[in-house]
Amino acid sequence: MQLLKNILRPSRAKSMGNLYLIPTLISDVNPLEVIPLGTKKVLEETRIYLAENAKSARAFLKKAIPYVQQSSLEVIQIDKHSSESEYYKYLHQCKSGKHIGLMSESGCPAVADPGSQIVLEAHRQGIPVIPLVGPSSILLSLMASGLNGQNYSFIGYLPIDKHDRRRKLKELEAKSLKDKTTFIFIETPYRNLQLVEDIKLTLRPDTLLCIASDITGINQFIKTKKLSEWKTEDFQHIDKQPTIFLIGIS
Amino acid sequence: MQLLKNILRPSRAKSMGNLYLIPTLISDVNPLEVIPLGTKKVLEETRIYLAENAKSARAFLKKAIPYVQQSSLEVIQIDKHSSESEYYKYLHQCKSGKHIGLMSESGCPAVADPGSQIVLEAHRQGIPVIPLVGPSSILLSLMASGLNGQNYSFIGYLPIDKHDRRRKLKELEAKSLKDKTTFIFIETPYRNLQLVEDIKLTLRPDTLLCIASDITGINQFIKTKKLSEWKTEDFQHIDKQPTIFLIGIS
Repeated sequence: MQLLKNILRPSRAKSMGNLYLIPTLISDVNPLEVIPLGTKKVLEETRIYLAENAKSARAFLKKAIPYVQQSSLEVIQIDKHSSESEYYKYLHQCKSGKHIGLMSESGCPAVADPGSQIVLEAHRQGIPVIPLVGPSSILLSLMASGLNGQNYSFIGYLPIDKHDRRRKLKELEAKSLKDKTTFIFIETPYRNLQLVEDIKLTLRPDTLLCIASDITGINQFIKTKKLSEWKTEDFQHIDKQPTIFLIGIS
Repeated sequence: MQLLKNILRPSRAKSMGNLYLIPTLISDVNPLEVIPLGTKKVLEETRIYLAENAKSARAFLKKAIPYVQQSSLEVIQIDKHSSESEYYKYLHQCKSGKHIGLMSESGCPAVADPGSQIVLEAHRQGIPVIPLVGPSSILLSLMASGLNGQNYSFIGYLPIDKHDRRRKLKELEAKSLKDKTTFIFIETPYRNLQLVEDIKLTLRPDTLLCIASDITGINQFIKTKKLSEWKTEDFQHIDKQPTIFLIGIS
């Protein structure tokens, strides 16, 4: 492991700990399939974690570093109700040389989750922020979509109201055509089928839609087709599965 | 390695090869720091590669799988002049059960490079597209920026002309404020200092700018500050270094 020295490089201020941004699994696989040894090495050196969900963070740590005693790990759950002064307090521990790991419930922290406020607080305090490599369903779906990866936008969730949602879809389609932009969005898994229905009813036959479901998992499904070609597809297999939707042009 | 079975799962049509999307290094590190064993395992099983740059692809393969004879690997350089019929021909080999790997010159294929046309052709031919995990400077910089990761746009390069570029920067700043969007852009490394100068002259003092340079490398530099706080910084260390720029609000 001597060559794994870059990831753990000491910060310039030798006594300062780092804020490590630690990706977690996005499907039920062996961590070594999707987490590099460099990221694993950091887990072995870190004892304090800030997590979107403490339970899933502990389950991931148990799977990734089973030989490290869970009782030696401090996992603090942070959520949208946490205040700036709490972030300040947690991160202040880095000043005494302790490393802190930030973990999302799934995938990469501070992307499609509220973790960025903590990262910004680390910058304010002058704490080195070290992002680590791991799976991101948004990035993997973009790579695999075949849609334009030189100009793209992630926009989170569409409106829930049917009319607002269809209007939004039309608006995205028009922008996508005009600026050759790929739009990436997500939905609560149990609403996937409803979203697909709205997409089918709203978008033009020649618009490209990529559906990317259970990415890196055993039921991985990633396909891009024109809307007209999707019409006959049965979508039951994406029902309640974590899924990313992308629309664009070729 | 028995557990690394998901990544190499056979396609549904048993005789069909996969198109693997293979991330490469974005800095001079040991591949194991940033490339998971699952991705490495695919490299061991793949003999045909389509690459943005054949020379750098071979250098990466030599570093990642040194025990595989280079003469047994076919590396085909594809570029923006390659035609759809060429893509068709290359990918058609998957029909006889051969796997093909697609590689960018740096980072993740089909993101911020022209590779997406090949991926789309694979979808057209019904070839399974399997994205693999590895480093992406765009994703890592977004994670580490502390800027909004729930709504963001990658826009590639800004205009080269000074006036157009400053107008574009003002436009992005206004959109960023209005929609709470993070904008991510890049520049040819030797123009980094000029871009920083334009940013300093154009954006508001309270706009947040993240500069992320040599990500995962030994000279990694990632910092987010308000424009007013950047004023006194010396930027020589990002001169000619691959760098990502992000602007947004907290």
